[in-house]
Amino acid sequence: MLRKLLTNGHIRCARRFSSSKAIPELTKDRYNVKRGEYSLLTDGHMAFFMNLLGQNRVINDPSECESYNIDWIKNVRGQSRCILKPRTTEEVSKILEFCNENKLAVCPQGGNTGLVGGSVPVFDEIVISTALMNQIESIDEISGVIVCQAGCILENIDQQIGEKGLMVPLDLGAKGSCHIGGNVSTNAGGLRLLRYGNLHGSVLGVEAVKANGEILDCLSTLKKDNTGYHLKHLFIGSEGSLGVVTKVAIQCPTKPKAINMAFLGVESFDSVLTTFRRCKNELGEILSSFELIDALSLDVVTGHYKMQSPIPQFPFYILIETHGSCNEHDEEKLNRFLESAMGDGVVLDGTATNQPSKMKQLWELRESITQGLLMDGYVFKYDLSIPIKEFYAIVDVMNEKIGKDAVRICGYGHIGDSNIHLNLSFKEYSKEMHNKIEPFVYEYTSSLKGSVSAEHGIGFRKSKYVHYSKSPAAINLMQDIKRMMDPNKILNPYKVLPESS
Amino acid sequence: MLRKLLTNGHIRCARRFSSSKAIPELTKDRYNVKRGEYSLLTDGHMAFFMNLLGQNRVINDPSECESYNIDWIKNVRGQSRCILKPRTTEEVSKILEFCNENKLAVCPQGGNTGLVGGSVPVFDEIVISTALMNQIESIDEISGVIVCQAGCILENIDQQIGEKGLMVPLDLGAKGSCHIGGNVSTNAGGLRLLRYGNLHGSVLGVEAVKANGEILDCLSTLKKDNTGYHLKHLFIGSEGSLGVVTKVAIQCPTKPKAINMAFLGVESFDSVLTTFRRCKNELGEILSSFELIDALSLDVVTGHYKMQSPIPQFPFYILIETHGSCNEHDEEKLNRFLESAMGDGVVLDGTATNQPSKMKQLWELRESITQGLLMDGYVFKYDLSIPIKEFYAIVDVMNEKIGKDAVRICGYGHIGDSNIHLNLSFKEYSKEMHNKIEPFVYEYTSSLKGSVSAEHGIGFRKSKYVHYSKSPAAINLMQDIKRMMDPNKILNPYKVLPESS
Repeated sequence: MLRKLLTNGHIRCARRFSSSKAIPELTKDRYNVKRGEYSLLTDGHMAFFMNLLGQNRVINDPSECESYNIDWIKNVRGQSRCILKPRTTEEVSKILEFCNENKLAVCPQGGNTGLVGGSVPVFDEIVISTALMNQIESIDEISGVIVCQAGCILENIDQQIGEKGLMVPLDLGAKGSCHIGGNVSTNAGGLRLLRYGNLHGSVLGVEAVKANGEILDCLSTLKKDNTGYHLKHLFIGSEGSLGVVTKVAIQCPTKPKAINMAFLGVESFDSVLTTFRRCKNELGEILSSFELIDALSLDVVTGHYKMQSPIPQFPFYILIETHGSCNEHDEEKLNRFLESAMGDGVVLDGTATNQPSKMKQLWELRESITQGLLMDGYVFKYDLSIPIKEFYAIVDVMNEKIGKDAVRICGYGHIGDSNIHLNLSFKEYSKEMHNKIEPFVYEYTSSLKGSVSAEHGIGFRKSKYVHYSKSPAAINLMQDIKRMMDPNKILNPYKVLPESS
Repeated sequence: MLRKLLTNGHIRCARRFSSSKAIPELTKDRYNVKRGEYSLLTDGHMAFFMNLLGQNRVINDPSECESYNIDWIKNVRGQSRCILKPRTTEEVSKILEFCNENKLAVCPQGGNTGLVGGSVPVFDEIVISTALMNQIESIDEISGVIVCQAGCILENIDQQIGEKGLMVPLDLGAKGSCHIGGNVSTNAGGLRLLRYGNLHGSVLGVEAVKANGEILDCLSTLKKDNTGYHLKHLFIGSEGSLGVVTKVAIQCPTKPKAINMAFLGVESFDSVLTTFRRCKNELGEILSSFELIDALSLDVVTGHYKMQSPIPQFPFYILIETHGSCNEHDEEKLNRFLESAMGDGVVLDGTATNQPSKMKQLWELRESITQGLLMDGYVFKYDLSIPIKEFYAIVDVMNEKIGKDAVRICGYGHIGDSNIHLNLSFKEYSKEMHNKIEPFVYEYTSSLKGSVSAEHGIGFRKSKYVHYSKSPAAINLMQDIKRMMDPNKILNPYKVLPESS
């Protein structure tokens, strides 16, 4: 039986910085990193930047620099004393040309919402922030293609093109802060990849600036263009280590006329899988999200934020969303699926809605988990692809290994993409616990031929674990590409690739 | 008013080699190419290959070699006297390692259905045929991921996985002959890209052998894997010039439970665009194809093959296909759309069907055009991406320029992807006409910021036109990549990239 969503749930959704006020240890100390042989910033360098951008777009006051030096989950902290805010591709080009000639390391930064320490400096790298590159340049309503600067905030783009009947194919929890250039650079996945595919498929073109300042115009707005190598993919997911993305062209789908959601409770992970198979079969083309939340993940938001769940407690919750062009048809499909799944006991309880405010509440239950976890204390976060049959076993494995020492060990994520977010929270960071969890968690994932970073990327914190998911030949080729495109290694150093011998 | 399809249409659909029996002039003569400084094949080399593969898998008889030397449209002809048929990745690896050490040029070949001369040798390159690498290695019914060797024929894969409720996301006219490795190497587009996206999105993993024989295992079967650079994209669409694709992993969608088609006649290209906009709006998520056929393109198949059109003559025909999970809903959507489009006169006549035999006939009308055109004589074929508003103007422009000298100037293609196939047929090839058409057709396309090769690739015949769609910086980077990955230039020489200075 379906029941209505409770409407008196207090849902807090404002995106905030970490709840903890403590600033993290310096990355160089916590992780014992050695600074590369880059030049030190001089007054002469600063004068060049001031002259290029003007005083307002060069930040060097230590307290103002701080938020650019610390990542969102407060795990890493750099010491940059130079934050640059270009407005145009040409300015980015001049900055990089100068930095390359002067062997100054740089760290490109978008909304700084990354979870692997890729978007903040490790030492004193110059931060190139895309914050002021925030213009949507064109929207083609017939083809659905938009072109925008790298610093546009995802949610802002979605709102603006929504007025023209389009939607961004990408959606993720950090949408209110993250920049589209950062999304592309990290090949962000998110909540609706199941339906709308990945960015390698939907990004039609990229403009990027190479390490030497050369502007590479691959900003095609065409769906099909087989004229030579598909260079844009070098920048999608290489986390700013091969070039700085300055503009992107994206194929945007038509905004759905009908959106429906369901929030279901099931008894076991097997029931989750059964529900997924049925969903794919019965909802077919309208299924846009299939998300898993385990009991302890939901407890994060019902506990810390006092949000209310619309159904009683179950071991697993499933959040389903459909996007379609005819509400009558979509409701019929969804109701038929729910009646059959609840009728034979696979789904134990559930609620369905297409009221915008209630759907927003359901999404907030899911999207607030990441942030809520920070209130536990320190969180070890893993973003793993694991073959679907073994998807959830890792939570049990970690429980067995760590158990009572943790505040919480939980898993949630994108079942439809075999992507689990495994989280282990503790009152505070401890090196000992760190060593107990890693590299075990990566070894385990590797043994199942999974990926040690499904969508968050490698950044600073995972570079030594790449080999768990990539062969030596692949890593060698990555290093060849890096040498070819950035011989002075100025772009986002200490990240993405394992140190070369 | 909808009318039934005529059932007495004689439709010939067997895929054949070109109707003309004449063999083309040698490529080196027709195109005045100079052979690169590669070694000449010796008895010693042949002995190595015989020893590796056995006598049956090394072809050197000149008459047997012929079909491997001539492309499907009989435009180019090489003179290879050594065709190799490996069965395994390891054999490909040993062949390439040997060829690289001995500076022997190679030409990887799949089904040899390419249209730009990319799949046949230009001189005496050794042909590496994937014909015997035709095993499907795994099919995962839950995730929809399949892994297969490069030489699997597209249609065979589709049939085999069809039994498990899956379909290949790619479909094209040459499906009965083309190899999946060739599809991936050329980033083939096809008839349903509109719905299922491009291969950069749906290929999850690639195994490829580098020029030096090194096997690169990027054969991930995961939907999400952000562990370093996304190397597989180097091989998708680089036409065998950076490595030989030996295996692919593909994300396959659920086979639709309901398929419906409509074949419509409209008066003008403006009506085609209006119909497309309405279709996107009203059919939404179930629209899987939206194809345009102009009057002279349909005349190819009604004329040469005596196929019958289900509706009377119109300036433009539109073929629409829907894929969905509920036939009742899909029919309702399609009928609603057709009634409204015919009711107000945008669509003048049409037929709709979901009977498999009739749908097959409709597809054959569309898919037989390419082959039928060859019966006109010699065909200049262009595969252009052009912004949708100006999509069809190029046919008028070419008519004005060439007019009466041609047997036929016609356009058909994938409106949904802004991809037009422009064809100009003549009784026979003439250099003079060639020069009248090219580079004009490319200059015109470039002036509209289109692509001079939407889906067919660059191959041999278009390498000097790449600059019409790519910037000098992009071409330089392509050449850097080629040098890095294939320093001896043994892989598919004379193709893809413009000659470097």
